[in-house]
Amino acid sequence: MAAHQAVLFDVDGTLVDTNYLHVHAWLRAFADEELPVEAWRIHRCIGMDGTSLLHRLCGDVPDEIGERLKQLHSGYYRETAGLMRPLPGARDLLHRVADLGLQVVLATSAPEDELQLTRQVLDCDDVVSAVTMSGDVDTAKPEPGIIEVALDKAGVGPAQAVFVGDAIWDAQACARAAVRCIGVLSGGVGGDELRAAGVVEVFEGPHALLDHLPDSAIGTLLG
Amino acid sequence: MAAHQAVLFDVDGTLVDTNYLHVHAWLRAFADEELPVEAWRIHRCIGMDGTSLLHRLCGDVPDEIGERLKQLHSGYYRETAGLMRPLPGARDLLHRVADLGLQVVLATSAPEDELQLTRQVLDCDDVVSAVTMSGDVDTAKPEPGIIEVALDKAGVGPAQAVFVGDAIWDAQACARAAVRCIGVLSGGVGGDELRAAGVVEVFEGPHALLDHLPDSAIGTLLG
Repeated sequence: MAAHQAVLFDVDGTLVDTNYLHVHAWLRAFADEELPVEAWRIHRCIGMDGTSLLHRLCGDVPDEIGERLKQLHSGYYRETAGLMRPLPGARDLLHRVADLGLQVVLATSAPEDELQLTRQVLDCDDVVSAVTMSGDVDTAKPEPGIIEVALDKAGVGPAQAVFVGDAIWDAQACARAAVRCIGVLSGGVGGDELRAAGVVEVFEGPHALLDHLPDSAIGTLLG
Repeated sequence: MAAHQAVLFDVDGTLVDTNYLHVHAWLRAFADEELPVEAWRIHRCIGMDGTSLLHRLCGDVPDEIGERLKQLHSGYYRETAGLMRPLPGARDLLHRVADLGLQVVLATSAPEDELQLTRQVLDCDDVVSAVTMSGDVDTAKPEPGIIEVALDKAGVGPAQAVFVGDAIWDAQACARAAVRCIGVLSGGVGGDELRAAGVVEVFEGPHALLDHLPDSAIGTLLG
């Protein structure tokens, strides 16, 4: 029997309200190293892995400084664990997708310790059938690696899956992997920016997607 | 002699990189009061005054809770003073505008204590000819009050002024006051959203506006 069709979910900014906590943690890290980086530029890079984010924001920083920045970010981010909340509708959406007989896959390039935090906040492991994380690939989004690993883990091809994400990088990685991408505004990136990056439709957040599930790209997976 | 033409500048997110610090401070305030408010919705409300922001995000909260939220936000915001930076090009832009013989007006609805902080960070009081703040009007942006007070203080009509801002509220208030509004992306709101709200042109931030000053709406003030 063929594997069940799959919905691949980004986590940060898509299921859990963490993007602005990441921005704040990076702001503090850059301030510690006296690197002036504008907050809005950091925001636009959330969803990339740490190394790609640093390269885009700071150019060629020495490895030693890059490692220090990543550790500072990680420490400051963990400090804000008490502020992490599931986005409205996120849990219900995952349960509904699972109830429809579709696989729920968490497809993120977050480091394992950060993913542990957000999975605890989400508290939906019982309906999650597969998970990717930063260790699964050398290159994160916008490279399509994470999406391809997620498809492999789910045992489906690109046409049997839909991705849900909030970042330009999600849309770009999906375009390269030939997977349809639904965009949500809950990460703070505007709908026009997401559409320009290739998403097929835009919802305010998990709750709005849940309300329109049968008419969305996820609905088309059900045939 | 007629008053010199004026450029009205929003401060937060336009001249000083504070929008994401405001988001974080509000997130902490809402968490303290156990009110679940999504970060991206807070971000989209930065630039409104505190009372309008609370009404939009929380509906009708009792005055007592509203006051507590504003005080919590204010305290948490001040804690991040060490992270406040002028946006790249902000100081040079204000000096250049003054050198061209135009009035530099800070037109914000921020409370006085917050404005003191950002004016210190900006360190440009020598070229600023007028300032508005929350106490100047009962209703902040998107109502046009702040813009009208700024025009009064500068002694010019709407056609003799251009506004520079980063928020949807700036653009809407300008439209109501018949003042042309230039949008900057440095507050984290996308260019399409700003254009839809009525800005006449968009630049990445103060630096990019400075680079294109003669061709911008500010250039047209010089005739």
